[in-house]
Amino acid sequence: MPLFTGNLKMWMSLCQSLKIFSMLVEVEMINETGQIELDQKYMLLALAEARRGQGRTSPNPCVGAIIVGDGSVVGRGYHKKAGTPHAEVHALRDAGEKAAGATAYVTLEPCSHTGRTPPCCVALAKAGVLRVVVGMTDPNPLVNGRGVQYLRDHGIEVSTGICEADCREINRPFIKKITTGTPWMIMKAGISLDGRMNYKEGEPGWITGPESGALVHQLRDSVDAIMVGSGTVMIDNPSLTTRLPGGGGRDPVAVILDSQLKTDPDAHVYSAASGRSVLVFCQHDVDEGRKEVFAERGVIVLPVSSLPEGLDLGEIVAVLGERDICSVLVEGGAQLHGQLLQKRLYDYLYLFQAPLFAGDGGVSLVTGCPLAGREDAIALRGVRRSVLGAHLLLEGEIEYP
Amino acid sequence: MPLFTGNLKMWMSLCQSLKIFSMLVEVEMINETGQIELDQKYMLLALAEARRGQGRTSPNPCVGAIIVGDGSVVGRGYHKKAGTPHAEVHALRDAGEKAAGATAYVTLEPCSHTGRTPPCCVALAKAGVLRVVVGMTDPNPLVNGRGVQYLRDHGIEVSTGICEADCREINRPFIKKITTGTPWMIMKAGISLDGRMNYKEGEPGWITGPESGALVHQLRDSVDAIMVGSGTVMIDNPSLTTRLPGGGGRDPVAVILDSQLKTDPDAHVYSAASGRSVLVFCQHDVDEGRKEVFAERGVIVLPVSSLPEGLDLGEIVAVLGERDICSVLVEGGAQLHGQLLQKRLYDYLYLFQAPLFAGDGGVSLVTGCPLAGREDAIALRGVRRSVLGAHLLLEGEIEYP
Repeated sequence: MPLFTGNLKMWMSLCQSLKIFSMLVEVEMINETGQIELDQKYMLLALAEARRGQGRTSPNPCVGAIIVGDGSVVGRGYHKKAGTPHAEVHALRDAGEKAAGATAYVTLEPCSHTGRTPPCCVALAKAGVLRVVVGMTDPNPLVNGRGVQYLRDHGIEVSTGICEADCREINRPFIKKITTGTPWMIMKAGISLDGRMNYKEGEPGWITGPESGALVHQLRDSVDAIMVGSGTVMIDNPSLTTRLPGGGGRDPVAVILDSQLKTDPDAHVYSAASGRSVLVFCQHDVDEGRKEVFAERGVIVLPVSSLPEGLDLGEIVAVLGERDICSVLVEGGAQLHGQLLQKRLYDYLYLFQAPLFAGDGGVSLVTGCPLAGREDAIALRGVRRSVLGAHLLLEGEIEYP
Repeated sequence: MPLFTGNLKMWMSLCQSLKIFSMLVEVEMINETGQIELDQKYMLLALAEARRGQGRTSPNPCVGAIIVGDGSVVGRGYHKKAGTPHAEVHALRDAGEKAAGATAYVTLEPCSHTGRTPPCCVALAKAGVLRVVVGMTDPNPLVNGRGVQYLRDHGIEVSTGICEADCREINRPFIKKITTGTPWMIMKAGISLDGRMNYKEGEPGWITGPESGALVHQLRDSVDAIMVGSGTVMIDNPSLTTRLPGGGGRDPVAVILDSQLKTDPDAHVYSAASGRSVLVFCQHDVDEGRKEVFAERGVIVLPVSSLPEGLDLGEIVAVLGERDICSVLVEGGAQLHGQLLQKRLYDYLYLFQAPLFAGDGGVSLVTGCPLAGREDAIALRGVRRSVLGAHLLLEGEIEYP
C-alpha cells in the first residue's frame, strides 16, 4: 500500500491540524515550565523562612511556609521552637482572610497528627487554601504521606518534591534521628597540610586560627551536642561553649567520653557558667565515689558497656538519641575520630585546613582506623570547599564503602 | 590681611585659569593611565608568547616579545630553546621594516652580552625601535640592568616593571638558579583527607586518581628533573617518564637518591626507553662493582657526602645546579619530603588532595621533620586552589619561619 493516498487538499488539512496541535502542546509545556519555575521561586522563600529556625527547633524539624494569593506573598512563617506553633500556622495567621483560595508553600509535608499542636493539614483546609506545594514528605512515621493524603482527600491540589534536595539538607539531623533513632554525627577538625592536628603529641595544638574560629562557634550554635574524648579535656581543657561575635549563642549539651572518669572535675567543661547539660559517659565499673564527685557538680554520669577498644560508641549514640539529641559535633581527638569512622557512625565532615606544615611530631587526624586499600577508603560525597581567609573549609557527607 | 582682595573680575579670571589648568592635569593623567593600560595589554601578549616556550628553554629563561607599530602588533616572537635566537630577534624578524619607530614589549630585560647569540639590545637599537617596555630586569649577573642602560644610552625610551609579578612567575626556576646556583625545588604529593600518601606502609598507594594524573604529567613535562628516594623506586617502581594525553612530552632527567645502591638495576626508571639522563646519588663508600652495574646501564652514578640522616641533600642540589638543572620535581617519599622541608631546600608545593580517608595504616606526607610549634611552622604563600574533578590541587611558595 502506498504511503501517500488521498488528495493533496486532505493532506494539507491534516498537516495544518497537526501544526495547531503541536502548538497547543508547546503552549501547555511552556505553562507547565512556568508553573514549576514559580513554585521553585516561592519554595526558595519558604526555605529562607525555614532557615530562620535552624538549630533551634530540635527535636522538631525546621520548617518554613509561604502563602501566595493573587500572585503575591500574603503570609510567611517558620517553626521557631518545639512545642510552639508550626510554620503553617504562623503563615496562615499572617495571611488572615487572604489565605482563602491561596497556594501554600511548605518545606516539609504538613503534619496530620495531633502532637503538642493540632494538625496543620486541618488548619490549611479550614483556611480555604486551594493548593499546597510541598518540598519533601515528612519521614516521621507518624506523618509519612498522611498529610498529603489528607489534603487531597479534602479536594486540595498537592504538588510534592519541589526543591527537595534543599529541603532535605536543612533537616539532615531530624531525618537521621526520626528514621534511625540516632543523632546526625558530625566530625570536625582543624589540620595542617600534612594532616596534623597539633605540633607535638600531648600538647594543645592551634593549627587553624581565628579564621575558622568564628565558623566553629556558628557550628556549635547550630547543634544539639558537642562531644570530645577525655584526652581533649585533659590536654586542651576546652569549655565547649558557644561564643558568637555578637553574643546570643546557645551552648549545646557537652558530652565527654571518659571511661575511667580520670578527667579533672574542675576542668572548664564541668565548671563553665552555662545552663547547658553536661553528660559524661564512663564504663560500668568505675568507683562510685568518683561518679559522685561529678554528680555533685551537676554532671550527668552515664555508664555504658566497654569493648576492647574502649567505650561502646554504638551504645553511646543510641543513648544520645533517646535523650532527643538530633545532632552531635565531635571535636576530637584523633582516637575518637578514628573509632567513630571505623564504626561507620560519622555522617558529615567539617575539615578546616591551614596552609602550613606542622611536621611529624604532631598527631594525625585519624588514629586507630587502618583501612586495607582504595576499595576500603571512606569517601566524601557532595564535597564543598570554602575559603576562610588563608584557610580552607572542606565539608561533605561521609560515605562508607 | 583679608583673604579676598582685588575685584570680582580678577577673581573670576583666576578661577577660570585654575579650572583650565586642572582640566589639563586631568587630561595628562588620563593619558598616563591610558598608556599604562596599553603597556599592560601588550605585555600580556608578550607573556602569552613567553609561555609558549615554558619548560623548553632551560637553563635559559622563557621570554616573549611583541613589536607594536602605528597602534597595532607588527611582530611577535618567543625564545624556543637555549642556543637558538632570543625572543626579540624572532619578533624583530617578524616585524621587518615596521620595527623602525615602533615600541618593543619584552617580558625580560634584553641581553647586553654576547652569549651563544649576539646581544638583543644592539638588535633593537639597529632596527630603529624608539621605545622598549620591559617586564622585569634580568637577574643574570651578566645583564642585571646593563641592557636597559645600553638602550637608554642609545636614545631609546625604556619603561620597566610592567606586569612584573607575572613575568617573574613564569621564570621562577631561572631566577632561583641564576641567583643561587641551585635549582627551583618543587614538592609534589597526593594525599588523603587524613594526610596519608597510601593505605599501608611499604605498599604502593594510589590515593589521587586519574583526575590529577594528567596534571602530574604536564608538571613533569615542564621541569628539568624528577627526583625520588630509593624507597619509592623499590615500592612503586615508577618509570618517571612524561605521558601526555596527546603524546609529544619530554622526559625530564630522572634523579634517584639511593645511598647504598640497593635499588634493582632493572627497575623501570633505569630501563625505560627514553633519551633522558638518569642520575643516581649514592654515598662515597659504595661497592665499586655495584656502581659498575648501574654505569653499564648508562646510569650516571654520583657519589656525595653522607650525614647522620642520609645523603647530603645540600650537596645534591648544588651538583644538580652545576649540571644546569634549573627545576626539580620531587615525587617522594615521605622521608625525602621531610628532609628537604627541614633543610629548607623546598621552594614550591603541589599538593593533590583526594576527598577520602586512607586510615592510619598509611604513610603521612612528611616524616623526619618535627617542628616545635606554630612559630616554627612552615607556611605556604600565595596559595592557589584548583578543583580537578573530585580532587583539590593546592599550590604555593613554601615560606620558612
